This record gives sequence, C-alpha cells and structure tokens, in this order.
Amino acid sequence: MELWYIQDYINEYKMGLKVKETIFQGKTRFQEITILDTYLYGRVLLLDGIAQLSEKDEFMYHEMLVHVPMFSHPNPEKVLIIGGGDGGASREVLKHPVKEVTLVDIDEGVIEVCQRYFSQLGRWDDPRLTVLIEDACQYISSTSEVFDVIIMDSTDPLPHGVAEPLFSPEFFEQAFHHLSPQGIMVSQMEPPFFDVDRVKKLWEGFNVFPIVKLYWGLVPTYPGGIWSYVIASKSQDPRRQERVPDFPTRYYSPAIHQAAFVLPSFLEEMLENQKRDEENFS
Amino acid sequence: MELWYIQDYINEYKMGLKVKETIFQGKTRFQEITILDTYLYGRVLLLDGIAQLSEKDEFMYHEMLVHVPMFSHPNPEKVLIIGGGDGGASREVLKHPVKEVTLVDIDEGVIEVCQRYFSQLGRWDDPRLTVLIEDACQYISSTSEVFDVIIMDSTDPLPHGVAEPLFSPEFFEQAFHHLSPQGIMVSQMEPPFFDVDRVKKLWEGFNVFPIVKLYWGLVPTYPGGIWSYVIASKSQDPRRQERVPDFPTRYYSPAIHQAAFVLPSFLEEMLENQKRDEENFS
Repeated sequence: MELWYIQDYINEYKMGLKVKETIFQGKTRFQEITILDTYLYGRVLLLDGIAQLSEKDEFMYHEMLVHVPMFSHPNPEKVLIIGGGDGGASREVLKHPVKEVTLVDIDEGVIEVCQRYFSQLGRWDDPRLTVLIEDACQYISSTSEVFDVIIMDSTDPLPHGVAEPLFSPEFFEQAFHHLSPQGIMVSQMEPPFFDVDRVKKLWEGFNVFPIVKLYWGLVPTYPGGIWSYVIASKSQDPRRQERVPDFPTRYYSPAIHQAAFVLPSFLEEMLENQKRDEENFS
Repeated sequence: MELWYIQDYINEYKMGLKVKETIFQGKTRFQEITILDTYLYGRVLLLDGIAQLSEKDEFMYHEMLVHVPMFSHPNPEKVLIIGGGDGGASREVLKHPVKEVTLVDIDEGVIEVCQRYFSQLGRWDDPRLTVLIEDACQYISSTSEVFDVIIMDSTDPLPHGVAEPLFSPEFFEQAFHHLSPQGIMVSQMEPPFFDVDRVKKLWEGFNVFPIVKLYWGLVPTYPGGIWSYVIASKSQDPRRQERVPDFPTRYYSPAIHQAAFVLPSFLEEMLENQKRDEENFS
C-alpha cells in the first residue's frame, strides 16, 4: 500500500508527498496538528492539513525569513517573533548578538509538539528567549515594548483562519508604532504569481511603512517551490547589509541577500503598477 | 466530475493540475504528445506524460534559457538549437540580431502540433530560421558548421528516453568542437536538490569546457517550482553581459542575469565539493 499526503492549493493545483508514516496527530483549541514522515522531505509539520515546514528544507525558509531583516539592521538588540511556535525562526535570531527575543504564539500545542518531534528547530533554553502564549493582536495593542526587528512567522492569512487578523492594516500600524526608529519588520507571504489579488491586498497592508520591498527564496516544500517575503522599514534600506554572518549558514549569504531582491521583470512591473494605482487613488 | 492531471516525480512527489479538457492526444514514432487545457496554467504540453511547458509560464523558461547565453556573447551570429520543437527558444533567439538559426529536432510531430495549438510560441516564417528534422547526435557528428551559441532545449535525460544520448560526455565534446572561440553552450537541467546524483552526473558531462556555471530561475509548472541551467563556454565568462536587451522582456533583465548565478550556500558547496572530488581523482 502507498500512503500519500495530497495538499490542495487554490483548488486548481495539488502537491503530493509519499508518506512513510503518521508520526503525530492531534487537535488544539486553534488548529489540527499533524506530523508526517515523508520520503522526500523527512518529517513535515501540517497545521489544519497545510504543510508548514519540513526537516529537509526548513533552513531555507528560516534563514531567509530571519537573516535578511537581521543583517539589514545595524544593531538589533530586541526582537519580536509573532507565531514561530516551531522554534526555527528564534533559533536563527539567537545566532545574532541580540539581548532579548520575545516569541508570541497563540497555540501552546504547536510549541509542545515541535519541541518533541522537531528538536533540532528550537533553542528553547536560551536565557535571552521569552515565550508568551497569547494572541499577538492583543499583545501588540497592550505592550509598551519597542523592538528593533519584528518577524511575522505565522500561518497563511486564510479567510477566517487563525492568522487572518495578523495581516490587517490595523495590525501593521500597531507593529509600526512598536518599532524603534531604525526598526524593520518582515512577513512571509505566498508566492506572488498564483493568487495575485490576495498578494496585492497583503502588500497594501504595509502602506503605513515608508519603505516596503519584496524578496524571495527557495522552499521546495511549498507549492510553486519558492516563497516570498515582505520587508518593511521606517528608515533602513533592507537591501543594504549592515553586518555579515560570523556563524555558518546553509542558504543565506551576503550575495544571496542582494540577489533575493532582484525580481523577474513581470513581478517588478506588477508591484510598480500596484504602487501607481495607489498613488492615483490617493 | 473533476479531471486532474497528476505527474509523478521521482516516485515520492506528485504534482496535480485541474484540467478543463484534453485538447490533443497523439503518438509519434518517438513519443506520446498530449495537450491539456488547465485552470492554473492554461494549455500545457506533455511529452510521454511529462509537462514540458505551459502557456502561462513558458516565457520564464524560454527567456532564461536563451537570453543568458545570448547576452553573454558579444556578437552571436550563428545559433544552434537542439530540440526546441515547440518554437519558444527560437522565438527568443530571433529577437537578437542573429544571421542564422538552425533548429534540429528529432520529432516533426511536436513541431506540427505546437504550430497548431501554441501559435504564440514560434516564429516559423522568419527567413533566418532553418528547421532540420534529424537526430541531433547524428547532426552534430556530421556537420561542418561552427556556432557562436548552442542551446539544448530537449526533454529530460531520462534513462532510455529520447534525450538520453544528448547528455553524454561524447555529445558535449562534439558540441565543444562545433563552437567558435567565444562560443557558449547552455542546457536546461532539473533543479539540483531532488535527485542530486543525477544532477552531479550531468554536471560532469561538461568537463570538456574550461568554464562551467549553474544558474536558475522560476518555472512554476515544473516540480519544485524552479529550474536550473548549465552554461559552459570556451572563453567568455557567462556572468558578464556583453549587451543589453533592446526589446521588451517579461522575466529577463540585466539585474536578473547577475542574480541568477547567485546560488544558495548549500548549492555552492555541493558544486564546489563536486569539483574538488574531480580534482582529487584526476
């Protein structure tokens, strides 16, 4: 018998992974958590049936999500991670000489399961890390903390999903006010060629920031094989590296930092048209 | 009823596309040709059941396959295309001020079907284009022509497949001898992270060339979402652009030309180790 995990994507595309066995299956108050052992990618974490990360390529996603904003900032001392309950984003942040990392995840269940089944992902015992189990919207509207870098490592903003409120213009505005003057914010975003309208809407949410750029990288596990990231800042140009790694990396490099911001012509045009449309309406 | 085309990839990965209808199905002496109309990518050409190109993203593949070698050459007058029966590669080559383009495809059937169902792909009436229906191995061993650029636009080198002999060291050596002193050769190659051993073997085939580089680009239709290209030359550095486009492009740009050669650290290392292994054995 062959066991396959088949992921539907926008109803016109499926991705299938051949499965060795189901390692874990459970339900929290917020979502269903599944861990599959697959032939191609090793262990894969699914939330509500959607692949979030795999053993084999999680480094590609986490390095690009974290090191691009972190190396664009001259001295990131205080970092906020929204979501990131699997631990991978905080593992990468803690490689930098940061002073405090706050991780706010709504679902304790994800953290517990990942600590058990993806032990390579987290540095949970690092004294610089504080974990808060809380709704990030509530946290950001009640805290008085100010951060140098805010990293959004949530699930996708599906309609009525757990992460939907995190992608609202209101949330981005709150985040803006909790960033230091050189502050930088980053969010994962789906690749900008499947559902162009959804991506345009997300892109608009960042309007409160004077500088907004898109960059991209490989993540073979995700449908389409690449992933994109929106990076927004108050004053820093995120394409400019302020520091270089003094630790080993497997995906990120100073050259990749530059290259990741170079978009194919059709994407450059799409984003520029979007900007022009906004200017015309304002 | 829902109709799905499901493509198996290395037996551990499937890609599924929702199908509106089957436009064409036929068999030539060499392969089975199918054209599907899909919701996500429009018309898709399949050879022996494997997706070769789609209406929606063929420009990404053809622009990156063609313009990187063409713009790395100061004055490409004579170009050879091996395969390319769909017409897309020659369409892009003919945008350059070339004098002669020779397209050698073994299967007339592919050309006829693509002329009919993918009419946007070919510039078949351009007087600079000569089409030869012939085995490219025979052609290259019997011709006395010398080319500035050779573009391999074949199907994948599957064991016992039509294209397997095209990826042999013997073929690359023949091609080398039919290149002018500034000559450049390019071949499509599958992404270098699924079947690493197969890619390493292909990479070795180019040993006859003093300069060999890998570059990559998006092609959402292909499993994994990116595709890679091997570019080999006698003297030119393919990362250096000798000319810039004076025609519109949708993917290629001078900045993309540079960025496409920047590989994630793990790929750089893989290719460097490969090179070191070869040096140790020689």
